[in-house]
Amino acid sequence: MSKYWSNTIKDIEPYVPGEQPKDKTYIKLNTNENPYPPSPRVIKAIKENTNNNLRLYPDPGCDNLKEAIASYYNLDRDQVFVGNGSDEVLAFSFMAFFDRERPLLFPTITYSFYPVYCRLLNIEYRQVPLQDDFTLNVEEFYRENHGIIFPNPNAPTGIYLPLSKVEKIVAYNIDKVVIIDEAYIDFGGKSAVSLIDKYPNLLIVQTFSKSRSLAGLRIGFAMGNKKLIEGLNRVKNSINSYTLDTLAMIAAREAIKDDKYFEETRLKIIKTRDRVAKNLRKIGFKVLDSRANFIFISHQSYPACDLFNELKDKGILVRYFNQPGISNYLRVSVGTEREMDVFIKTIEEIISG
Amino acid sequence: MSKYWSNTIKDIEPYVPGEQPKDKTYIKLNTNENPYPPSPRVIKAIKENTNNNLRLYPDPGCDNLKEAIASYYNLDRDQVFVGNGSDEVLAFSFMAFFDRERPLLFPTITYSFYPVYCRLLNIEYRQVPLQDDFTLNVEEFYRENHGIIFPNPNAPTGIYLPLSKVEKIVAYNIDKVVIIDEAYIDFGGKSAVSLIDKYPNLLIVQTFSKSRSLAGLRIGFAMGNKKLIEGLNRVKNSINSYTLDTLAMIAAREAIKDDKYFEETRLKIIKTRDRVAKNLRKIGFKVLDSRANFIFISHQSYPACDLFNELKDKGILVRYFNQPGISNYLRVSVGTEREMDVFIKTIEEIISG
Repeated sequence: MSKYWSNTIKDIEPYVPGEQPKDKTYIKLNTNENPYPPSPRVIKAIKENTNNNLRLYPDPGCDNLKEAIASYYNLDRDQVFVGNGSDEVLAFSFMAFFDRERPLLFPTITYSFYPVYCRLLNIEYRQVPLQDDFTLNVEEFYRENHGIIFPNPNAPTGIYLPLSKVEKIVAYNIDKVVIIDEAYIDFGGKSAVSLIDKYPNLLIVQTFSKSRSLAGLRIGFAMGNKKLIEGLNRVKNSINSYTLDTLAMIAAREAIKDDKYFEETRLKIIKTRDRVAKNLRKIGFKVLDSRANFIFISHQSYPACDLFNELKDKGILVRYFNQPGISNYLRVSVGTEREMDVFIKTIEEIISG
Repeated sequence: MSKYWSNTIKDIEPYVPGEQPKDKTYIKLNTNENPYPPSPRVIKAIKENTNNNLRLYPDPGCDNLKEAIASYYNLDRDQVFVGNGSDEVLAFSFMAFFDRERPLLFPTITYSFYPVYCRLLNIEYRQVPLQDDFTLNVEEFYRENHGIIFPNPNAPTGIYLPLSKVEKIVAYNIDKVVIIDEAYIDFGGKSAVSLIDKYPNLLIVQTFSKSRSLAGLRIGFAMGNKKLIEGLNRVKNSINSYTLDTLAMIAAREAIKDDKYFEETRLKIIKTRDRVAKNLRKIGFKVLDSRANFIFISHQSYPACDLFNELKDKGILVRYFNQPGISNYLRVSVGTEREMDVFIKTIEEIISG
């Protein structure tokens, strides 16, 4: 605490990201990074563009990248916003669309950054409960609100809400902005992007950090009606004219153009995920049905917190959230086939004592 | 305008950065970029680190870069904050230290992003007048306030406030945060960094975009008492855990380590600036005394706005601000010797009709 701090920051409790350990080499299954490297085209393009032009500011409009995304998703360029990771895009969205007066709704179990944004920006929020099986009852989002956000698939459960249900929520709340946080959509879900032209209140947020293997370069984006995108640009241009650097933009553009590589790697991850889930269920784990690049697991008799620590001791990092409702679960990112073999073997050893 | 926008963004007027033109090749003297490329060590380090590890998140603490900056300025690591360009660092500073209730002070003629932050964040501000010669009377900052910010050297005038006067302002306002925006300090001014251990209310913001030739990679930083730095971290970790990407961090670290290259290039720019100023004065220009990598000029008979347009027609981009008090001035970034020869020749041709 300091007398120099603004009232806002005195009260907030910042988000804590997963560890990026430096002490030793772990099998790192704790931050949902992609186990496969970025497309070789990305690496090549960055190297080719690492030159004297780095002395110049990037294009503040990020037009080339927006065009590549728009073209991939069959949108217009002015239906796309890009930013420094989807976290920044989400923060800007909260500033652009939500007010201090009326409550924003999101699920009780969800991406834990949402309440952090709310506290920083002084936005009221109410959390709607999930059902006992962690699925979302869409009618929970029919109550009074001034905006809605939820991840699909949800985090950290990995559970996917079918597009028809997403549409119901968007349609019912046509006068409020509904944000679908699709950070993990490429691992088996169906994006709501097809609904953009139908619903002016729909904003979709995605990232290059997961399915495009570019967590190191910080690229997120939003898609929606051009008036929503204009709102995001107003925020961005009131904070930082150039949020994406030259190399990150080039990398992202190449990544989205290399569809073959993208398909290959995301399908490999899905395959590994489903195999690991099956194996874990065989040895007494409850594994939620995941459409993400992670699984959310709980053992019938072995406490999650202990498992977390023992895995860490044995060189495997996973994520444990000490939160009501999920304190006996672990979130495990899907690594390579080999990494997951080691993970299963290690966890079998631990639980068999 | 859109019914979906929050009240905040309905009222704001975002900042407009200088053009990054795509239509043709200009001599680009409009955004204060460094005319010299980044250090060769920077280019080499980026290429070497463009590899599969880009799939991993960057270090959220940015420890290696903070250490390099701390070591350069003889500070502790926890006295350093880094961010996505100094604009982001400034925006975070406004959130961390200023409140909606009490007025923030900054000069009437100054970096035009400050009022933009205030409007976005709902911070009251009052602007203190400069003297007729554009210098700052320190006593203007003795009036009631809840915080102070000014660039030193000032933008867009380039005028430098001697360190003894900076210290007076900081000392007088010991209970308020005083931010010195030193984006241009390396071009002939003396940084207030030496005062950090003496004044817990002093925050200094700098950038790698100007004197380190890295505008394309978006790296800014702040230095101050560790409690102020902690405040900035609270804001950052409530918006985006990873604001700096892996390659930008590596680039910045190499840049600050290559002191020889830094000294060579900044001295070249200072030399060119002083030569250009001298030549322009000879042909009827008023040239303010600049300690930045730009000059602020006004012709005795030729209107700045016309000059701006004619220079642009002839392939030279400079910056014109249509604002009270400076509407007959042009801001001209210092380019290479050769670029400035062309600039002087062109401007001579224009004014001699």
